[in-house]
Amino acid sequence: MVSRFRHAALVGKYQAHGMGPLLEDIAHLLSRKGLDVSIEARTALATGITEYPSLTVPELGRECDLVVVVGGDGTMLGIARELAPFHVPMIGVNQGRLGFITDVPISSLHEALCAIVAGDYEEEHRAVLEGQVLRNGNVILSATAMNDVVVRCSGIGMIELSVSVDEQFVTNFRADGLILASPTGSTAYSLSAGGPIVHPGIAGLVLVPIAPHTLSNRTIVLPDSGRISIEIVAGREMSANFDMQSIANLILQDQVIVRRSPNRVRFLHPRGWSYYATLRRKLHWNEGGVQVPGGF
Amino acid sequence: MVSRFRHAALVGKYQAHGMGPLLEDIAHLLSRKGLDVSIEARTALATGITEYPSLTVPELGRECDLVVVVGGDGTMLGIARELAPFHVPMIGVNQGRLGFITDVPISSLHEALCAIVAGDYEEEHRAVLEGQVLRNGNVILSATAMNDVVVRCSGIGMIELSVSVDEQFVTNFRADGLILASPTGSTAYSLSAGGPIVHPGIAGLVLVPIAPHTLSNRTIVLPDSGRISIEIVAGREMSANFDMQSIANLILQDQVIVRRSPNRVRFLHPRGWSYYATLRRKLHWNEGGVQVPGGF
Amino acid sequence: MVSRFRHAALVGKYQAHGMGPLLEDIAHLLSRKGLDVSIEARTALATGITEYPSLTVPELGRECDLVVVVGGDGTMLGIARELAPFHVPMIGVNQGRLGFITDVPISSLHEALCAIVAGDYEEEHRAVLEGQVLRNGNVILSATAMNDVVVRCSGIGMIELSVSVDEQFVTNFRADGLILASPTGSTAYSLSAGGPIVHPGIAGLVLVPIAPHTLSNRTIVLPDSGRISIEIVAGREMSANFDMQSIANLILQDQVIVRRSPNRVRFLHPRGWSYYATLRRKLHWNEGGVQVPGGF
Amino acid sequence: MVSRFRHAALVGKYQAHGMGPLLEDIAHLLSRKGLDVSIEARTALATGITEYPSLTVPELGRECDLVVVVGGDGTMLGIARELAPFHVPMIGVNQGRLGFITDVPISSLHEALCAIVAGDYEEEHRAVLEGQVLRNGNVILSATAMNDVVVRCSGIGMIELSVSVDEQFVTNFRADGLILASPTGSTAYSLSAGGPIVHPGIAGLVLVPIAPHTLSNRTIVLPDSGRISIEIVAGREMSANFDMQSIANLILQDQVIVRRSPNRVRFLHPRGWSYYATLRRKLHWNEGGVQVPGGF
Repeated sequence: MVSRFRHAALVGKYQAHGMGPLLEDIAHLLSRKGLDVSIEARTALATGITEYPSLTVPELGRECDLVVVVGGDGTMLGIARELAPFHVPMIGVNQGRLGFITDVPISSLHEALCAIVAGDYEEEHRAVLEGQVLRNGNVILSATAMNDVVVRCSGIGMIELSVSVDEQFVTNFRADGLILASPTGSTAYSLSAGGPIVHPGIAGLVLVPIAPHTLSNRTIVLPDSGRISIEIVAGREMSANFDMQSIANLILQDQVIVRRSPNRVRFLHPRGWSYYATLRRKLHWNEGGVQVPGGF
Repeated sequence: MVSRFRHAALVGKYQAHGMGPLLEDIAHLLSRKGLDVSIEARTALATGITEYPSLTVPELGRECDLVVVVGGDGTMLGIARELAPFHVPMIGVNQGRLGFITDVPISSLHEALCAIVAGDYEEEHRAVLEGQVLRNGNVILSATAMNDVVVRCSGIGMIELSVSVDEQFVTNFRADGLILASPTGSTAYSLSAGGPIVHPGIAGLVLVPIAPHTLSNRTIVLPDSGRISIEIVAGREMSANFDMQSIANLILQDQVIVRRSPNRVRFLHPRGWSYYATLRRKLHWNEGGVQVPGGF
Repeated sequence: MVSRFRHAALVGKYQAHGMGPLLEDIAHLLSRKGLDVSIEARTALATGITEYPSLTVPELGRECDLVVVVGGDGTMLGIARELAPFHVPMIGVNQGRLGFITDVPISSLHEALCAIVAGDYEEEHRAVLEGQVLRNGNVILSATAMNDVVVRCSGIGMIELSVSVDEQFVTNFRADGLILASPTGSTAYSLSAGGPIVHPGIAGLVLVPIAPHTLSNRTIVLPDSGRISIEIVAGREMSANFDMQSIANLILQDQVIVRRSPNRVRFLHPRGWSYYATLRRKLHWNEGGVQVPGGF
Repeated sequence: MVSRFRHAALVGKYQAHGMGPLLEDIAHLLSRKGLDVSIEARTALATGITEYPSLTVPELGRECDLVVVVGGDGTMLGIARELAPFHVPMIGVNQGRLGFITDVPISSLHEALCAIVAGDYEEEHRAVLEGQVLRNGNVILSATAMNDVVVRCSGIGMIELSVSVDEQFVTNFRADGLILASPTGSTAYSLSAGGPIVHPGIAGLVLVPIAPHTLSNRTIVLPDSGRISIEIVAGREMSANFDMQSIANLILQDQVIVRRSPNRVRFLHPRGWSYYATLRRKLHWNEGGVQVPGGF
């Protein structure tokens, strides 16, 4: 069968043990299926693979029509953020415990890749956040996030943040900080801080106050069509971070602007993939796991 | 100025004090503005107003193009549920503390109604839930809900419920019960049980487990495009209720099916209305209200 | 070595598979160690064991100085409630997954029992709740609970409950219900409803509102020296239950009175037993179990 | 009537408007009642009151048998922490909204003080926390806290903390941080982070994980008789703070040790004072305040 794809790029978690041989194995497989294969430049450098051409992320974004990522959710989210503008579909292969979005296990790697390359897969799109930090009207940081944008006190004591959506005032939050999470990020830090799980099909963002001073300041799910502004009203030693990667230290009156990016990330999953099955597996829902004792 | 509306119907909370004169006052005002005015039949009976024709709810749904509801959120939600199939816009007038959706105060009633009648208003649509209870494949209850559908143990001990969305299995919940709330209902019972506030612009439903046995069974926001099935797996003395109005006692293997209704409710608000302002007011967010003591 | 104990009674979960031979095995072991052995009467009847004398629970409470319970936490709590007035130490043997308080596994049964019988054990005391339901000043139910007393709406809609401690008014709760849990019960239903884990060494009771209408109605840990009164102010179809066992249907103005019993239950654990280890095991704390994805 | 007290000291929130005349007024009143009156040294300096002798906090701790504090809860907790070793009873006078522990309003100041001076009051004791930060076995900080000790990440990302009680391992928490609160502190930061309200009569400490990675890591109420150790296992940019006042930056393997201080703070309240009334007032429990809409 002819491959639906033409040119695959491989990206690996550089520091992971045994990454080189594993990537070579995947490269050979895809090559045998008739695809051109390239290796992402940093991955090539780290693994020493020279048998295939190496491409920078923007290059592979422009030239490839399939990206295979080997690593955990963190690796995937990092590369997905960079690749978002290019709309290249991505597959996540996990060497260890399966992640929320890296769901092809090593054990069924060959079958899964063959099926996907033959066009037998489920495609899923995920929203990406983009934002700026403004100081006196000037952009001091521009960044994107797959999971969340967090504005937080990094000293002690709380901060006060004024939130608006499309110029409509929402409220002033006095709290340790605020998390603004995508549906993808709703199962990450947001969940720890008490937020709900939000299905990726929801066109919404989750606004979670961290340890809010006002007990009725509960999580809000906002439409992702709006432009959300978070202004620093009071506090000391604050920062904004995008996916805990791009960080700006903040001062009073700085504004953090977040909106959904026009780009969406495309993930390919093996046929039969189910978002709910992933939740059950990752949150140990049906295993008699963490349960309170029943009646007696 | 010519009214944008032709025929208004008035609905009142029957048992409320002073309802008759208040409704007559509104009727005269609308009449002077050139609208035909009718009184909802039960309201007419309870208040003894005979000066205007009385119409049953289906009749006024077919004949009127504006409904003015005087009462609290409960009165509004009750009539909104009945009127949903007719797409008639509704205005909520509140005699006491303003509600989430009854937001015209008596004090500014005349100005607000005049402006709205003249076409100066904000229109907002709200999703309605509809559902069935199935026993052995037969429908034993069919009902709609503006706020929520609740499947709950009414005895002691918990119940086990198997949830699927569009035939995809989500999980089995062992809990006191499950709340499936619309965005409108997200600020009602769902909020008490730990659910998030969901903006009415979100095309989603909130699934909140009540006192779940499994600690990682957290609230999920599901797309409202799906057909949600809740099946009774274990338990005794269970019931399903729609807006705490239509109720069915349940037995093992009964299925409660919920989906978003094709009908949406139309609310008209005075110009300048803001969903967030309503939240601030109802949840006392910016009043120094219920707050933990700050640092010192 | 001489046994520290003189006369042991065995209690088993009647319906459990293989209970007869297991109890006989334990009986022989204790017999060989020089103890008199009796079988609890219902257990003897259910298992058909006739080799040892059978005693009712009150008889064994008076005559025995050690009780070995085979079953889960539910079996243990049931018998512990009955035995509380007699101060007889109890050991819990679990055939399946270890419980919070039944922590001797079958696999190390012999060593554990021999050590305990020889006096090598950790003793732990647990508070017991006792209460009455009063109607017009008359006691209509008197009962004890190891875990919790729950006053709850069994219909739809919420109830209103007025709580006082030693005649001091606490507040009126409008909620689905209230849980009053002992430290033992803090890891049961109370935990599902959002309550904290309370170490058994704390002289306190946990008052947890279930889905409270007022968002600032949070869990309170009250001194267990007080007499707690819960009066029904509003609602329909309410009940009070003690350990989900003794139940009274309630009407308006009924009062549920709860206090710590003067009796405490004595549990013996194998040397090295740790409350915290039990929490870690039961709540899967250190297993990389139910975790949100970390940063990346 | 002869005063039960001999020598009162006055402490005021230095920067508050009108503090000087108010303190002088209180001083005159107490003087007329036959008490010696001194002014705390920093307060005297800030207000310019020279009519009465000024004493440092340790001096007034040794010489006075009553301290009147004018300010909010923060002012009171600050001075209470310093005075704890001296067991001097304290009264809190509040110029604005009453606090949790500053509960004599200006409006009834004279009556309240006269009654208290005459011996008509309720006395209440509160636990104080004390702790050390250890690095390589050396104490790098020693401090006390009325509310809480917080170990927290001040950078981004979470930290891992190993908690033990009296050398018994509890668990490793991966979270933004941990709060260890006294009952007094249970209504402060701990409440924001999801902890329960703990009555001051409870001999316990509340251990609240902030945004814990493991969803089953719930709040634990621990006996206050233990020595609690929190060791830094992983993380960057961490700090420990005592009442958000005394702060130490932490590195890996630092240990924060917390125990209940042998000193307790003594508060005097007007007759009829009730802890529960304070909760109702501060948390707006019975005002129809922050409530979700009821059934309809």
